Amino acid sequence: MPCPTPPHNFSAGPGALPDPVLLATQQALREIPETGLPILGISHRSPWFRNVLDEAEQLLRSLLGLHPSFHVLFLQGGSTLQFSQIPISFLRGHTSPADYLHTGYWSGKSIPEARREGPVRVAWSGEPHAFRSLPNPSELSPSPNAPYFHYVSNETVEGVQFHHTPGRDDIPRFCDMSSDLLSAPVDTSRFSLIYAHAQKNLGPSGVTLVLIRDELLQTTPPNLPSMLDYRRHAEARSIYNTPPVFAIYVTLLVLRWLHHDIGGLAAMNAINQTKARTLYHTLDSSSGFYLPRAHPDHRSVMNVVFDLHDPNLSPTLLLQAQHAGFHGLEGHRSLPSSIRASLYNAVPQSSVDALCDFLRDFARRHG
Amino acid sequence: MPCPTPPHNFSAGPGALPDPVLLATQQALREIPETGLPILGISHRSPWFRNVLDEAEQLLRSLLGLHPSFHVLFLQGGSTLQFSQIPISFLRGHTSPADYLHTGYWSGKSIPEARREGPVRVAWSGEPHAFRSLPNPSELSPSPNAPYFHYVSNETVEGVQFHHTPGRDDIPRFCDMSSDLLSAPVDTSRFSLIYAHAQKNLGPSGVTLVLIRDELLQTTPPNLPSMLDYRRHAEARSIYNTPPVFAIYVTLLVLRWLHHDIGGLAAMNAINQTKARTLYHTLDSSSGFYLPRAHPDHRSVMNVVFDLHDPNLSPTLLLQAQHAGFHGLEGHRSLPSSIRASLYNAVPQSSVDALCDFLRDFARRHG
Repeated sequence: MPCPTPPHNFSAGPGALPDPVLLATQQALREIPETGLPILGISHRSPWFRNVLDEAEQLLRSLLGLHPSFHVLFLQGGSTLQFSQIPISFLRGHTSPADYLHTGYWSGKSIPEARREGPVRVAWSGEPHAFRSLPNPSELSPSPNAPYFHYVSNETVEGVQFHHTPGRDDIPRFCDMSSDLLSAPVDTSRFSLIYAHAQKNLGPSGVTLVLIRDELLQTTPPNLPSMLDYRRHAEARSIYNTPPVFAIYVTLLVLRWLHHDIGGLAAMNAINQTKARTLYHTLDSSSGFYLPRAHPDHRSVMNVVFDLHDPNLSPTLLLQAQHAGFHGLEGHRSLPSSIRASLYNAVPQSSVDALCDFLRDFARRHG
Repeated sequence: MPCPTPPHNFSAGPGALPDPVLLATQQALREIPETGLPILGISHRSPWFRNVLDEAEQLLRSLLGLHPSFHVLFLQGGSTLQFSQIPISFLRGHTSPADYLHTGYWSGKSIPEARREGPVRVAWSGEPHAFRSLPNPSELSPSPNAPYFHYVSNETVEGVQFHHTPGRDDIPRFCDMSSDLLSAPVDTSRFSLIYAHAQKNLGPSGVTLVLIRDELLQTTPPNLPSMLDYRRHAEARSIYNTPPVFAIYVTLLVLRWLHHDIGGLAAMNAINQTKARTLYHTLDSSSGFYLPRAHPDHRSVMNVVFDLHDPNLSPTLLLQAQHAGFHGLEGHRSLPSSIRASLYNAVPQSSVDALCDFLRDFARRHG
């Protein structure tokens, strides 16, 4: 197979960005159309940047059908800072534990950060099943007294994804949607706080999106460090301090692409479902040469994680894939012999088709 | 005066970047030379990005003559997060107050964040002089029992800058050098912790540099939120979580420019001193039409802040300057009738010369 140009990018994150966004970003480095200035030397207090934030917020509200009670915040620090900021804001001083689901690597990171700040109950753990499956609704008994219920909608390392909304509608539902927000429609009305770092489907690393209900915001304690105080960020409309101007602008370009070029989240989801179906079908049809990790009911549309029947072949596959122009297929360092193909919004069907051809060919040659 | 192209950028931050850096950044958006991939879709766990961090660290060590006991950390959250992270790490639980200098807007922001975490003594305040001057060494009696001594080396809003190093050498000296680090040589051996957000002289907004001594690092308390734990970031060598890959790469390009093109900090300082001298001379020669705010002994080389003898003329000046291609001259929102020209590393002498011509011409027409 000749090396394609440009390479097919299956990176788990920071992930690929759509070509039209990359082109517009190059233009902005030379000169932003609205200002005539290069983006890297422009003030975050300029009217231009206020418009960037406002347009990004409006596009998010429209794409997600956000209830007006949500604030839209563009912050820094990634999900990892949110793992702490959430319990600092909503768990400290509580005696009833917050409910956390432990469904993989990333939710596993959130739990010790919460325990530093207050009581936590792990309402379900996938550890006995090596995080290959997620709880079905009947397996969960969320507490009616929890200050909140927290879960991660898509586990990028293990490749499992919720296809329903767990938890109780009478308890504030918090969700880390870092790796699937904006990949498909979501009923945001059932959530109190949603967060996502940008570097999967939203934009470059360095900006973190937080959607938070005003009712919840009003319950944050006084006297928090300013940068950990959601209220300050909401009052300052995301420019309490100097924000990551470039990353937010690229996020706006991604939102425009999603809204104007793709046509919204239902259309995006249709594209993503086809990509994932194509790849899982190739793996399932390999007569056991490739072994998808996740239980079929909980397979991620975003991160397809699989093993080879002979794990010793993994390095050979990765090397040949690299030469054939497939980039970013190595598994997470916690699953070193697994292969992971991340199919974020910007990955085109043509890259998935090419990967499937490569995988079939590899299986033929090594089966 | 015809409108120059490109505009002269005197933004107070995010500030201008050098032209060679902008060109290399455009190239990286298409394809990083070393990988053939666009920078916005590449993993922070790639060997390429490890090399970026390592080269940036080595260039910083070389430019600053850093003692090997310093860790070099690339973090997020700006100075504002450092205002909290420092006292959370080094003041909580102490009974002796930390010494803080209150020399302007930004040091004024650092003090309430510190007070949330422990006792603070304001060892000197410039408030009675409207922050037009800084303490001379004889005016300061730093405490011999303070857990640390904290100051801001350059106040961007008021345009005052330390031209000596305040504090005691036997007490850990902490400094916010956000707006002058890398503009001139600095004797880093006299500091225990130095921090700087990037968007003045280092790179784009979104990355924060922290230089911290290993001896100090070992004194951080256990059980901090991970993102506020300097030790975790040092152990993970700046990739504890997904870092702002793009902002760090552009910072590397700036460091290469400083080291290879400019020839180091002494050469950079000579350029910066000439720029500042040119502009202050123009103001001082205006027969009182322009009034530099800062006391002559404490004038900032980075931010030249001045008033007009008739403050009602400020909007006219700003409008005419804008039309003549001078960008970013408006004063901080706390000093709305002041003019501020920021002369960060990337601002060329030619822009300063053009500004001086404009200012002389404006004074002639309105004097």
